[in-house]
Amino acid sequence: MTASTPPPAVLTIAGSDSGGGAGIQADLKTFMAHCTYGLSVITAITAQNTQEVRSVMPVPSPVVQQQLEAVLDDIPVRAAKTGMLADASVIRTVANIWRQHRDIPLVIDPVMVATSGHELLDAQALDTLREELLPLATVLTPNLCEAEAILERPVGSITSVEQMEVAARELSARFGIPVTIVKGGHLEDGGKAVIDVVYLADQDTCVRVTGPRINSESTHGTGCTLSAAIAANLATGMDHLAAAQHGIRYVNMAIQTAYRVGSGAHGPVNHAHTLHRSLFFSPTLHAPHPFTEYLKGRSSALWTRYVNHDFVRQAGTGSLRRDCFIHYLKQDYIYLKHYARAAALAAFKSDSLVDIGASADIVFGCVRESTLHLQLCAQWGITREQMENELESSTSVAYTRYIIDRGLCGDLLELLVAMYPCLLGYGEAAARQAADLESVSENNPYWPWICAYADDEFQSVVDKGRRVIEELVQREMPSGARLERLVKTFNDTAALEIQFWNSALEYRG
Amino acid sequence: MTASTPPPAVLTIAGSDSGGGAGIQADLKTFMAHCTYGLSVITAITAQNTQEVRSVMPVPSPVVQQQLEAVLDDIPVRAAKTGMLADASVIRTVANIWRQHRDIPLVIDPVMVATSGHELLDAQALDTLREELLPLATVLTPNLCEAEAILERPVGSITSVEQMEVAARELSARFGIPVTIVKGGHLEDGGKAVIDVVYLADQDTCVRVTGPRINSESTHGTGCTLSAAIAANLATGMDHLAAAQHGIRYVNMAIQTAYRVGSGAHGPVNHAHTLHRSLFFSPTLHAPHPFTEYLKGRSSALWTRYVNHDFVRQAGTGSLRRDCFIHYLKQDYIYLKHYARAAALAAFKSDSLVDIGASADIVFGCVRESTLHLQLCAQWGITREQMENELESSTSVAYTRYIIDRGLCGDLLELLVAMYPCLLGYGEAAARQAADLESVSENNPYWPWICAYADDEFQSVVDKGRRVIEELVQREMPSGARLERLVKTFNDTAALEIQFWNSALEYRG
Repeated sequence: MTASTPPPAVLTIAGSDSGGGAGIQADLKTFMAHCTYGLSVITAITAQNTQEVRSVMPVPSPVVQQQLEAVLDDIPVRAAKTGMLADASVIRTVANIWRQHRDIPLVIDPVMVATSGHELLDAQALDTLREELLPLATVLTPNLCEAEAILERPVGSITSVEQMEVAARELSARFGIPVTIVKGGHLEDGGKAVIDVVYLADQDTCVRVTGPRINSESTHGTGCTLSAAIAANLATGMDHLAAAQHGIRYVNMAIQTAYRVGSGAHGPVNHAHTLHRSLFFSPTLHAPHPFTEYLKGRSSALWTRYVNHDFVRQAGTGSLRRDCFIHYLKQDYIYLKHYARAAALAAFKSDSLVDIGASADIVFGCVRESTLHLQLCAQWGITREQMENELESSTSVAYTRYIIDRGLCGDLLELLVAMYPCLLGYGEAAARQAADLESVSENNPYWPWICAYADDEFQSVVDKGRRVIEELVQREMPSGARLERLVKTFNDTAALEIQFWNSALEYRG
Repeated sequence: MTASTPPPAVLTIAGSDSGGGAGIQADLKTFMAHCTYGLSVITAITAQNTQEVRSVMPVPSPVVQQQLEAVLDDIPVRAAKTGMLADASVIRTVANIWRQHRDIPLVIDPVMVATSGHELLDAQALDTLREELLPLATVLTPNLCEAEAILERPVGSITSVEQMEVAARELSARFGIPVTIVKGGHLEDGGKAVIDVVYLADQDTCVRVTGPRINSESTHGTGCTLSAAIAANLATGMDHLAAAQHGIRYVNMAIQTAYRVGSGAHGPVNHAHTLHRSLFFSPTLHAPHPFTEYLKGRSSALWTRYVNHDFVRQAGTGSLRRDCFIHYLKQDYIYLKHYARAAALAAFKSDSLVDIGASADIVFGCVRESTLHLQLCAQWGITREQMENELESSTSVAYTRYIIDRGLCGDLLELLVAMYPCLLGYGEAAARQAADLESVSENNPYWPWICAYADDEFQSVVDKGRRVIEELVQREMPSGARLERLVKTFNDTAALEIQFWNSALEYRG
């Protein structure tokens, strides 16, 4: 994410789970999965894994207060959530500070018991939660047990979706909470669906959000994750209902895509399911060509063989057999025709007049380049007519028609990538020869050919081509699979370029 | 990231930074940015923001021990890093446990002073670090001050890259550390580059890694981030040098792409620069068509207008004017010809025989469908010849040529998306009419037309088309910008479909 506007900051106030699946760890992962900037105030340090909670060390409330003030004094927090708050003193501390920040949406996950069964909030603290903190909530996200505990109902008394709706309405009414989400995951109805109830106080409406009931062991930290996702959604500007619905869907997918971590009964969900990793970086002043550098890096052995090809080396030293060079020039004259057609196809496939013009430039470039071939051949008595009547070799057919086929089957980017090894490789190979061999150029009949590609004019065409591709790629930022397709196309045409020079070297007229 | 193999687990043992830019927060973000699963053992709780460190509460070493054992007992950790270790007792605890886990690569960032200047390790603890922990390091990542302190050299005594190399070699030799990276960010050489020295003990070689010197205030947590990135790279199987080089590049890009957070002198880096967010989810048993549902969701107003179009409603009730319907059939007969061409183009653009066959099926489907048009028209005395000679309306030209143009300019996926509104919309509109109006169908001359698209055969063609697109999309997982292009194509053709029916309704023969 290379953001043009800074991602909104979201804060979690919760316990730490060393196992990384719940608590502030789950929250920070969820914030990142929603492209937000995560902050955290730690209320307790737990030593736990997927099997058990081994110990809980509450953080003294003055330390909670210092963390909270440090964050709120400096960074504009767009939404926050609370998770495990450990004891009455921490709850009171958070509530006291939050009264001065009531404009920040606050999602309260009233954590009382871990998925593993470990008690995380003492009974006395529940009173403080009710009196001090719940009235400050924007969104409250209890499961059935938590709703029952807060409403002082008997355990197991909420047994239907209708009763969940009654409880949600009652919780919102009693504490003045705009949105209460009663989570139905623990409802034993034997059905295939999980129904969560979202009560919206301003409309006095319950919305039922239905998701599949997933038979999974990866449910550790789902409560943390949901409240964090809702906070992140609110921070990015979603309305209450959308934030709840998207949050529920995110958690559901995180369960469905989870992989096994640890050996315990309840593993973590997959927080990262929304994310894909770029395989190359954005361009910067210091590294302006990340994509084409990536392509070259991915095919480095091939690329090295190509730009150091014997054909170019022999041309550089003047040791190349003349009939091989003439054969090459004749075939390359035909090649240029089809490369110009490919450039015209690129113009056809372009969206903007700028891009159309850039490809038309390449068409003209091919026409200009062909006069070099005619001039070089003329000195050995070969006429334009002979050039035009030369039979196209199968190597030449293979290379050019492969490019055109990629252009017809793929989109503009793929076509340009197919055309690119020729452009970049000639520029690179010629520049290298020119730099290495400047002193021995005098009597070399192939030297004008090297110079034509090493000179500033051709090098600026190479630069321009590179810029067009880099811009196209930055606009799209191709996904991994698309990138693999482009790498294949680049490698294929680089290999065909090598074969083109091979076949010239192997020519026996 | 919907991983086929579980991401490797990486552990940080460090302090907590409430501001989210350094400490375990930076580490967890870095681990996620590298597609690894993050775990954390907290050694200290700091209350800090981008301006200052307000307080540091060391975590008692027994609590550090419990966290560390809980993690290591349950989860196969592939690499770890240490950051701020606060005091001698914590260092001793970590070292004691790590001696039983020497097979896990350990990156030690010898944190002593925060970027803000706050001291984070007392002098006595430095001795313990040297004696107990450094001998367990796989990689050590000191900056200049830290290297000087560990080697008991005067502050400011390392003043050149050569001296950095000497220091790196000495650190590795003295503590038996395979890799020592001396970070040159603080070297005052006035140059435009930052040179980090990577010493590889097994080859007794120093590699200089050069990056641009960036004039940035976003450098809070760079040390944490580098050591975390190197640990993540080691966890994913990179060799030492590659892990170091990629780590350095990652941090460099994180600085370059940073956005402003907080009002302090040193803001955090952008940990997420490697990541992109999917705009829709992976398919699951419960939600098998995420992409086409996403497309419909993105154009919901248009889509609703389309599948509830008056033309279809009037056809459903039988109230449609006959000349309008006949005009439609004649134009749609022409449309089918071009739609079949588009399908043939899709076959041409396909990679696999399965996909080629799927598109050929649509070609045949168009041919079959056209006989319905001929039959319907025949009952009103219109001959095949008349159908063939009908003038193509500009609405019909616009629609079909737009599809074919998208197919020629874009790739297979874009062509299929352009073709899709017709397929899906006819299926949906007809099924809706058939469901709503089954009882009134008897004397409706247009009823066979509705039934042709509502019947199981056509619906299964729709299903197949949907499956092909969904599979193609899952293979690629298009990036955001590409998705926008596809959404535009989908919307454009849905709008053209509406106009096609509009022009039939407006027909005055």
